[in-house]
Amino acid sequence: MKDGVVRVGVIGGGFVGTSLAQLLADPSRREALTDAATADVELVGVAVRDLSKVRPGIPKELLTDDVETLIESDLDILVEVAGGIEPMKTYIESALKRGVSVVTGNKALIAQSGPQLAQLAHENHADLFYEAAVGGAIPILRALRTSLAGERITRVMGIVNGTTNFILTKMMNEGSDYADALHEAQVLGYAEQADPSADVEGFDAAAKVQILSTLAFGTRLGGDEISREGITGVRSVDVEVAKRMGYVIKLIGVAERVGEAGISRRVHPAMVPVAYPLASVNGAMNAVFVNGVKSGPLMWLGQGAGGEPTATAVLGDLLDAARNRVSDRHDVPFSGDHSLHYVPAGELASRFYLSVDVWDRPGVLAEVASVFGRHQVSIQSMDQSGFNNEARLAFLTHEALSADVEATVDELSALSSVESVGACIRVIDEEVA
Amino acid sequence: MKDGVVRVGVIGGGFVGTSLAQLLADPSRREALTDAATADVELVGVAVRDLSKVRPGIPKELLTDDVETLIESDLDILVEVAGGIEPMKTYIESALKRGVSVVTGNKALIAQSGPQLAQLAHENHADLFYEAAVGGAIPILRALRTSLAGERITRVMGIVNGTTNFILTKMMNEGSDYADALHEAQVLGYAEQADPSADVEGFDAAAKVQILSTLAFGTRLGGDEISREGITGVRSVDVEVAKRMGYVIKLIGVAERVGEAGISRRVHPAMVPVAYPLASVNGAMNAVFVNGVKSGPLMWLGQGAGGEPTATAVLGDLLDAARNRVSDRHDVPFSGDHSLHYVPAGELASRFYLSVDVWDRPGVLAEVASVFGRHQVSIQSMDQSGFNNEARLAFLTHEALSADVEATVDELSALSSVESVGACIRVIDEEVA
Repeated sequence: MKDGVVRVGVIGGGFVGTSLAQLLADPSRREALTDAATADVELVGVAVRDLSKVRPGIPKELLTDDVETLIESDLDILVEVAGGIEPMKTYIESALKRGVSVVTGNKALIAQSGPQLAQLAHENHADLFYEAAVGGAIPILRALRTSLAGERITRVMGIVNGTTNFILTKMMNEGSDYADALHEAQVLGYAEQADPSADVEGFDAAAKVQILSTLAFGTRLGGDEISREGITGVRSVDVEVAKRMGYVIKLIGVAERVGEAGISRRVHPAMVPVAYPLASVNGAMNAVFVNGVKSGPLMWLGQGAGGEPTATAVLGDLLDAARNRVSDRHDVPFSGDHSLHYVPAGELASRFYLSVDVWDRPGVLAEVASVFGRHQVSIQSMDQSGFNNEARLAFLTHEALSADVEATVDELSALSSVESVGACIRVIDEEVA
Repeated sequence: MKDGVVRVGVIGGGFVGTSLAQLLADPSRREALTDAATADVELVGVAVRDLSKVRPGIPKELLTDDVETLIESDLDILVEVAGGIEPMKTYIESALKRGVSVVTGNKALIAQSGPQLAQLAHENHADLFYEAAVGGAIPILRALRTSLAGERITRVMGIVNGTTNFILTKMMNEGSDYADALHEAQVLGYAEQADPSADVEGFDAAAKVQILSTLAFGTRLGGDEISREGITGVRSVDVEVAKRMGYVIKLIGVAERVGEAGISRRVHPAMVPVAYPLASVNGAMNAVFVNGVKSGPLMWLGQGAGGEPTATAVLGDLLDAARNRVSDRHDVPFSGDHSLHYVPAGELASRFYLSVDVWDRPGVLAEVASVFGRHQVSIQSMDQSGFNNEARLAFLTHEALSADVEATVDELSALSSVESVGACIRVIDEEVA
């Protein structure tokens, strides 16, 4: 840092990059910004793909398409809001090696290489902040790094994908079926037109679970050690029955301690009791629950995506990095806990909701029930609805091992009296969730 | 700071002080603590009132009843968890003047003197942190100071008093009347036996609104510039009618911008739509909503009181202050915005719930309705229930000025056909709350 000025470069000409650059270049915001950053913040350059595009509020001479030169121009902080693994990873590494602090919202990159990049930052006395990568404007990552630094966290659980939450809320509140709700999400730009699988198959949520659990528990597990199930199998009839039983179906991401040295990490649809705060997180909102031994349950809620909430998170990180520059310090990353091992979802117990479509003939319920019994899955309650010569049986089980429930589903599917097993969804039972 | 060791003194031998001291003195926690603080943390002394009391896990030689000497013994950080304005204010000032950073959970003191103490800290290159003063373990104050430092906040609203929320939840879920629910809160230790007014009259919530609005808006308004109404007038019948109308009654604290330079600050019961996240904040839980221009709505939820959650918040502050010591920096308090003026609650418009007990005779509804009309208060819907020769009329109004509704209540109360006006409660209508 030179002459009390923090020099900032931005990569990314999308909404977040543009609105951040506009803010940094706006003379009317200068005083508030200087106050919050404890230094003058100078926008040195904005790397964009298309130099010809008009970008009001950003002086033309600051626009560039030469990222390397921008990184080498004596920056204090590099803000990366372009996305994608490469070339951003190379740019960020190159900045960190020069001791430039980096602020990014690049979820895919942080999920893949967060700990290594944090280590590189630390070795070069720089910061690496990425609040925008999880939960939009929700300041959950900073809370894990600072306020909860001394706390033993037992579980992180949340609704971390706004698109699937939008779809499930539509299905719940308006009785839409999955295909229609997905279509509306695509029309509104929440889900990708060509291939919505990043959202609906749970990949996006899994990347966020990877980032959250790395911070909350210090795990160094890979992104493949997360069990993942999306919402493509959730039918409107299950949403309906869930409602009747007092539940809302949500796609949740969870990372939690199992025993002394185990960690379960998973993404799956879950039945959430209507009275729980998570149940009222609707539309594109996100929410994250953290359970600590001493803190008890804590929840954060906010807009999980969108340009302006994301820009807020990036700005918060930028100011933090600027204040650190001013006092010539950087945040030290936690050392990882390499002793924690991954516990596959099949080894966990929970209550389950199962919906089974059967041919309505004498003895079918006894036959179905005996399959549950054979696999040590005990039935707590059943809801039956008939139509023509078919019947739909919706079961709530007592607590049972996931693997046993899966075996039950396999055997049920093979019965001639069973038309199909429609859904198999975990029930959330924790007191506050 | 000497030899890479952060020296900590604690004032307070209650639950929080004791559990913090035990943690700092516990050799098995040392490594994790050093990691999070980026330095060795040494417990230098614990000032308690009763030296004779046995305190397991705290070496006896660390106990003292001489606070002055403790403050003068070359501390880096003083933790004050004893409470009360004096002598704690004097102790804290004396520590700050020596450049000792202070961590406190002293809500009353911070509500009264927060900005002055923060200024004193700044002048002496020290930190003043007080996360535990609002919302127990909820890290809302740090979020306002850091993540949202660059955001223009428009409203802070929350359930910030666990005792009244416990009472209202009892009334809602179990049909208890106010006196019984209060009694249970007293038996459980949530409310004070001798004089519960700090909670039920809204004084505690008002102190928290004072602290939150000072941080969120930089206001320098006094604690008397908060309109305050407690829950003593909330009857079980109103809770019942509210439920029927789709609302939950909550005691909320609000600070919000009004126009360009106005701030409304108030504590009052409010009708919250059941579908809003705030409605599912039950029992002794707290929740705080923050609305920012760019961030959109954000909510935090957690245990609002209790020894362990409070200790978590104090520990988070302590680690933050320790890391600052290590890098020889301190957090700079925001400059205040002295231009903001207080807007009295009477000048604000909102929808209202009014319950009026009348003698059930011909023409009474017309008479009552005409009073509303005379004061420009327009009725949106009415719910009538009769018993013997009386009737209870529950009205929801359209948006109306508070002052007009008050005038309506006054005139209604004077009518011979009106037995009493039972309740007059604001309705929360914001999209997410």
